[in-house]
Amino acid sequence: MNDSAAPVPIVPVILCGGSGTRLWPRSRKTRPKPFLPLVGESTLFEATLARCDAAAGFAPPVVVTGAAHLDLVEAQLNGCKGAGTIVEPEGKNTAAAIALAALRLPADAIMLVCPSDHYIADVDTFRETARKAADLAARGWLVTFGITPTGPETGFGYIRRGEAIGVASGWRVDRFVEKPDRARAQAFLDDGGYFWNGGLFAFRAGTFLEELAAHRPALAETVARAVRAGHAEGGRFHPDAQAFAAIQSESVDYAVMENTAKAAVVPASMGWSDIGNWQALHEALEKDGSGNSIAGRAELRDCSNVLVQSDGPRVSVIGASNLIVVVDGDEVLVCTPEGAQDVGKLSGASRQ
Amino acid sequence: MNDSAAPVPIVPVILCGGSGTRLWPRSRKTRPKPFLPLVGESTLFEATLARCDAAAGFAPPVVVTGAAHLDLVEAQLNGCKGAGTIVEPEGKNTAAAIALAALRLPADAIMLVCPSDHYIADVDTFRETARKAADLAARGWLVTFGITPTGPETGFGYIRRGEAIGVASGWRVDRFVEKPDRARAQAFLDDGGYFWNGGLFAFRAGTFLEELAAHRPALAETVARAVRAGHAEGGRFHPDAQAFAAIQSESVDYAVMENTAKAAVVPASMGWSDIGNWQALHEALEKDGSGNSIAGRAELRDCSNVLVQSDGPRVSVIGASNLIVVVDGDEVLVCTPEGAQDVGKLSGASRQ
Repeated sequence: MNDSAAPVPIVPVILCGGSGTRLWPRSRKTRPKPFLPLVGESTLFEATLARCDAAAGFAPPVVVTGAAHLDLVEAQLNGCKGAGTIVEPEGKNTAAAIALAALRLPADAIMLVCPSDHYIADVDTFRETARKAADLAARGWLVTFGITPTGPETGFGYIRRGEAIGVASGWRVDRFVEKPDRARAQAFLDDGGYFWNGGLFAFRAGTFLEELAAHRPALAETVARAVRAGHAEGGRFHPDAQAFAAIQSESVDYAVMENTAKAAVVPASMGWSDIGNWQALHEALEKDGSGNSIAGRAELRDCSNVLVQSDGPRVSVIGASNLIVVVDGDEVLVCTPEGAQDVGKLSGASRQ
Repeated sequence: MNDSAAPVPIVPVILCGGSGTRLWPRSRKTRPKPFLPLVGESTLFEATLARCDAAAGFAPPVVVTGAAHLDLVEAQLNGCKGAGTIVEPEGKNTAAAIALAALRLPADAIMLVCPSDHYIADVDTFRETARKAADLAARGWLVTFGITPTGPETGFGYIRRGEAIGVASGWRVDRFVEKPDRARAQAFLDDGGYFWNGGLFAFRAGTFLEELAAHRPALAETVARAVRAGHAEGGRFHPDAQAFAAIQSESVDYAVMENTAKAAVVPASMGWSDIGNWQALHEALEKDGSGNSIAGRAELRDCSNVLVQSDGPRVSVIGASNLIVVVDGDEVLVCTPEGAQDVGKLSGASRQ
C-alpha cells in the first residue's frame, strides 16, 4: 500500500428497488418514485446520479435494479459514462443488493451506497460527507450517514453515536434504535447524540463482504453463487435467477450494521428528505408566501399550506389550510398532512 | 261568481332562467343547475314539475325559459300533458317572466310561480301551502311563500309579517327586508315574525298585471307589446324579440311585491333549500353517520362532513373534515363550507 497514492475512487452504488405506495397516485407500480420529477426538473434517480457524478470526482456508478424498471433506469442514465447495471431477478432487500455490487467490484473499491428515491438539498455538503465517509471506509469502517434530525420524527430509525474515531470526522456507532414514539424521539433530539438512519453507507467492498460472511454466512454464500452463475451482457450483469431465488431477504441494517463491530457514523446536515409521503414532499418543495406549492393547472383562493399537483385537470381550491390535492390520471387524492401517512392503505394504492 | 263552484285550477308557472355559477363545475353554462340531478334521481326541474302535477290537482304547467335551454326543458318535460313553454329571447328577470305567463293566461287563472332550481323535501306540505296561497290569491292577494327560517342565514332576503288575514292562513306583508348581516338575521330568528323570501308566489293573473301596470307601467306595456307581436308554434310561445329587448330587467320583488298594498305571506315549513352553493347542497343530501355524502367513485378514510361528487375519476380522501370535493370533466373543485360561497369568483366559473 502506498499512503501517498491518489485516493481510491468512490463508486456510487445506487439502489433502485421497491415500488412504494405512499406517493400514490403519482407513483404507480409501473412508474415508481425514483423515476418521477418530484422536486425540480430532474427525477430523484437523475438527481442521485448527478450528486455523485464524474465531474465531482466519483467513479462511474453501479445501479442495482429490478428487471421491471431496467428500461426506466437505462433511459434516465442517459448515457452516463461507464455506468453498469445489476439486474435483480426479484427484490431481495438491501443486504443482497449491496452484496451483488460488492462482488462485482475490486475488494479495495470504496462503495457509496445511495437510495435513489431521496432528496438532498445541499449537494456540496453531501459530497463533503461522502468523502469523509469514504476516508473512514478506506480505514476499514462500515460507515453510515447520520442525518442530523430536524424534528422529533417517528418515521425513521435512529443511530446513537459512540466514541469519536481518530480525527473526529466520525464516531463509532453505539447502537441502532428502532422507530421511536414521539416522546422518545423528542428525548433523542434533546440529547443531541442521535441521528436519523437515512440508508446511505460507505464501505470497502471487501470489508462489507467479510462482515456479511461473518454475520450472515448463508446469505453471503447464496449471493456469491448467484453471481458466479450469472452473466454479463454489455453494461448489464444478470445474477442467476435460480440461485437468486434462494437468497434471504434482509436489510443491510439487520444483516450487517447492527452486528458488526466496525460500524461508524458520519454526521450529515444536508437538507435530506426521504420524500416518504406527500407531506414530506410538500416540505421539500419551494412554496409561496402562504406556504402553497402548485404543479400543474390550479387556482387557489384563501388557501395556506396547500399542495396541489395535477397532471391535467384544473384544480380550484378555496379556503383550505394544510391540505394536499393530487390529480393523476383517473385518480384524485385529497388528504391532510396527518392523513398523508395512510395513503398506502387506500385501496387504490394497495391494489394497483 | 259562484262560491260553490269547483276551485279554479292552479297553473304552475315554472321559471327556468339564469345560469348561475355557484355550483360550478357541475353546473355549466350549457348545463345549468335546474337540469342536473343534484338531489336524488330527478333533476331539480323534473322535481318541480312533479311537485305540482296533474295527479295532485294542478293544471298543466307553463314553463318560461330561454332559447338556449329550450331543448333541455322539452327533454325533461317528457311529454308532460298540456304543458306550454314561453321562450324568452333573452333573460329579463322575474317581473317580465311572470308577466309573460300572466298575459298568456285567463285573467282569473291562479298562477303558482315556482323557481325550477330549488329543492323541497316535504312535498305534501308544499302542496298544502300552495292551496292556501291559491285561496288567498283567488281573493285578490299577491301571495309570497314565507319560508320558516332554520338558522340566521345572511344569504336570503326576509319578509316581516303584518296583521293576520281573515281565517289566518296568512298575513299581510309588513315589509320586505334586504339580506341582513348575521346579528340582524339572528334578531329576526329570535323575533319569530320573519320568513325567508324563497321566490315562490301565487297570484291571480289579472291582479298581478293590474299591480304591475300600477307600479311599473312601462314594463307592463313593453311586455304586453312583445306578447301582442309574438307568435305561437305548437306548445311554444315566442314573444317578439325586438319588443322584448326593450323590457326593463327587474325582479318581481322590486317591481311589484315591495310596492303593492296587496302583498300577503303564507308560512311554509317544507324542507326548502335554494341549493345556493355546494354547502347548501351538502345539507340537503342524505349523509352517512359521519356526515359524509358520496356520489360517484370515492373512498373516504377518517373523514367527517365531507361531500364528494365525481363524474368519473376515483376520489380518495383521508383525514378531512368539512370539505367539498367535486370532479367534473377537466375541473376539480376543493373547498371548505365557507369557501363554497366564493365558487362563482373562480376564473373557471366566471369565464366558462
